[in-house]
Amino acid sequence: MSKARIGVTGLAVMGRNLARNLARHGHPVAVHNRTAARTKALVEEFGDEGTFIPAETPEQFVASLERPRRLVIMVKAGAPTDAVIEEFAPLLEPGDMIVDGGNAHFADTRRREAALRERGLHFVGTGISGGEEGALHGPSIMPGGSAESYEALGPLLEDIAAKVDGTPCCVHVGPDGAGHFVKMVHNGIEYADMQLIAESYDLLRHAAGLSPAEIAEVFRTWNTGRLESYLIEITAEVLAHTDAATGRPFVDVVLDQAEQKGTGRWTVQTALDLGVPVSGIAEAVFARSVSGHAGLRRAARNLPGPKNDVRYLSGFADDVEQALYASKVVAYAQGFHQIQAGSEEYGWNIDLGQMATIWRGGCIIRARFLDRIRAAYEADPRTPTLLTDDHFAEAVGAAQDAWRRVVTTAAQLGIPAPGFSSALAYYDSLRAERLPAALTQGQRDFFGAHTYRRVDRDGSFHTLWGGDRSEVEA
Amino acid sequence: MSKARIGVTGLAVMGRNLARNLARHGHPVAVHNRTAARTKALVEEFGDEGTFIPAETPEQFVASLERPRRLVIMVKAGAPTDAVIEEFAPLLEPGDMIVDGGNAHFADTRRREAALRERGLHFVGTGISGGEEGALHGPSIMPGGSAESYEALGPLLEDIAAKVDGTPCCVHVGPDGAGHFVKMVHNGIEYADMQLIAESYDLLRHAAGLSPAEIAEVFRTWNTGRLESYLIEITAEVLAHTDAATGRPFVDVVLDQAEQKGTGRWTVQTALDLGVPVSGIAEAVFARSVSGHAGLRRAARNLPGPKNDVRYLSGFADDVEQALYASKVVAYAQGFHQIQAGSEEYGWNIDLGQMATIWRGGCIIRARFLDRIRAAYEADPRTPTLLTDDHFAEAVGAAQDAWRRVVTTAAQLGIPAPGFSSALAYYDSLRAERLPAALTQGQRDFFGAHTYRRVDRDGSFHTLWGGDRSEVEA
Repeated sequence: MSKARIGVTGLAVMGRNLARNLARHGHPVAVHNRTAARTKALVEEFGDEGTFIPAETPEQFVASLERPRRLVIMVKAGAPTDAVIEEFAPLLEPGDMIVDGGNAHFADTRRREAALRERGLHFVGTGISGGEEGALHGPSIMPGGSAESYEALGPLLEDIAAKVDGTPCCVHVGPDGAGHFVKMVHNGIEYADMQLIAESYDLLRHAAGLSPAEIAEVFRTWNTGRLESYLIEITAEVLAHTDAATGRPFVDVVLDQAEQKGTGRWTVQTALDLGVPVSGIAEAVFARSVSGHAGLRRAARNLPGPKNDVRYLSGFADDVEQALYASKVVAYAQGFHQIQAGSEEYGWNIDLGQMATIWRGGCIIRARFLDRIRAAYEADPRTPTLLTDDHFAEAVGAAQDAWRRVVTTAAQLGIPAPGFSSALAYYDSLRAERLPAALTQGQRDFFGAHTYRRVDRDGSFHTLWGGDRSEVEA
Repeated sequence: MSKARIGVTGLAVMGRNLARNLARHGHPVAVHNRTAARTKALVEEFGDEGTFIPAETPEQFVASLERPRRLVIMVKAGAPTDAVIEEFAPLLEPGDMIVDGGNAHFADTRRREAALRERGLHFVGTGISGGEEGALHGPSIMPGGSAESYEALGPLLEDIAAKVDGTPCCVHVGPDGAGHFVKMVHNGIEYADMQLIAESYDLLRHAAGLSPAEIAEVFRTWNTGRLESYLIEITAEVLAHTDAATGRPFVDVVLDQAEQKGTGRWTVQTALDLGVPVSGIAEAVFARSVSGHAGLRRAARNLPGPKNDVRYLSGFADDVEQALYASKVVAYAQGFHQIQAGSEEYGWNIDLGQMATIWRGGCIIRARFLDRIRAAYEADPRTPTLLTDDHFAEAVGAAQDAWRRVVTTAAQLGIPAPGFSSALAYYDSLRAERLPAALTQGQRDFFGAHTYRRVDRDGSFHTLWGGDRSEVEA
């Protein structure tokens, strides 16, 4: 019997679809699951899509793989991943590769990679975005790990990845945890993007008084322009959908409490450790969290709001499009800043333009927009922020009046717009000639003798606030 | 020789001042430092303030303490704290107490408390706020640990704590890490409070065109009203100060890059784990972080801003006072929500009103305002948020028009106000009848089959988006 080129263990929907994707591309794929029934079902149902080599035991599974072995594990992040690694690693030989395609925390991936490297094995923490459909038809793939492992693995992954303009949405991200780090930030950006879309909808609904169906049309129009993206497309679909049971707009029968699985939270926590301001992502995570605090919201329902009424605002939809675009640029600028900082912190040498390139297809945040980000980093790989790229600076500059009107309208009408207003504050902070942080430093020196620096000479200084208020060099 | 009632090891400024405070209150205090010179200097310089019992070695130090021993360590958080614990714990006997008065992470305190409890020792992680001056003249003290340890320790700590209306600013917070947790959130609130003050200053300066000296006067006036607090008081002092070297306002010669030591970051990271939205604290941490990214700011300096000019805005200072007050209520509501959530998560049973009570004096955020918070929890210990307390709901409701004008003005003029606008968005989110989180849930169901709940019946549902769009129960 011929050997499999690659194997997938863990055949829940993501693993199953990834195995099918590999088989469909002509790669004989070994398949294994803890309970054999799933393996059997997969081969029975989809056996004609390609060559599946089913295995009932870990030993059979490993034996069926050609050397060096490529073993993809698709199980829950956390303890289950460690358990599966410990099950298979003893059966492997030096040079073999374990690929973790789950949503692991990059710090876990770093730990696992180091431990397996000691044992002569490659560990490839790989971000895979695009959900079930992406896994089957072409996801965006973000593999970390050694360059050597990518040589053996890259061609297969590029084969099954989404393609945009013929370019696969898969590239070697960098060593050890780089792949899972980038996937984490991808998800953080996704949170921000979704929050901005939610605020756009909310404003069109409650400031401009449009119906969900009308707003679906607005999003459809936006999807023909610079905002063209998967998320905008499905927003229109969701808003246009009518609930069969009630005949009401679908969005009105869904409980307005958003859930989350943790990667957004990780993104913000990691950004805080790296000292990178990702306020847009943080506001998005918090907005979901607020929505879920049902008791708190019930108690606060009757807090007074502004007297202003809903009203038709001429040109408002266009203003919202501009606010959404500008805020989106900020969210991506913050996310890319975080990737840059993580890359420096961990020595990953990540090519930022490549990240934009492989997100253009397959993943949830796929968008025309990402091609512009690719171009920005192509023009200047060391650009300190996307906001100063010529194209984005001009576009955001042109959008800012509308953006300010939208933030203003939201505040006046009492419609929460934490994403829009936070993005605007970030933009205005970055371009400020002077920030009031000087006052903060003065206060810190006053109450804690934390010292300050001066604008006109080097050194650290302290004012004797409790004494004659003269200044001493610290 | 008579024994010491308590001992302090680690005689940098905080430890030294705490020892002096104890001695001044008539408690014989053993003092010890790794390098004996510091111990000697303390006794030489301040020996006449009370009874100091200097020790050169850990053994001498421990032997000089009456039983059960009360040993306060005042060293750097992290590894140094563990090292000192390991140095002293073997010398102690069951029932003795180690008090950590540093800024430890509450998770470390929980670990240490559990380990020392195994060895029969009490470990009391204690928040101490008020800086050097507080340590000497009366800090706010937040001790965790066992109730038994507080019986032996409380009277001494209450003795040296600040007093407000005769009530000491010290109370047993709760078991294990409760004290350090509450101190952490205290610091997070301090970040938010300082950011809101910074934005107030910035707006008065750049929207209303006032000079630092004029703004100092505004803060002085505010300090006679409901905003009366230590931070407002010192803000006036800092703004009124003139740099001797240049003759310019002090705040203009200080480099506008704010620094931070980590407790603000911890607060946000912990809040994310607890699912508590602390957007005001997060924006404050990020604002400091933005200010410190000098390269980024230099690159972004010329990004286009709005065309609007600085202008005198009639009544604007009063609007800012209202915005500051309302935003401050939000910041404290978020912080107290976090304490409540931490208390539930870890079974600490923290009395929220008591926390407000012990912050009224001694610490950096001490304020008249906190007495109102005490009263709110006295009226209803289970109030879900301070915002719905009668007093605060009325005050914020009355302030909201001005608050909205300030957020609007900031957005129009391009003055960053992330704290004000984030607080307003939180307020409007809480009171929203419907949030666009329903759309978010619809999107998540579309791209990831994450399911949603409905407003009209129980259960989890999924729409077959790729199929006939009928709904199935998940």
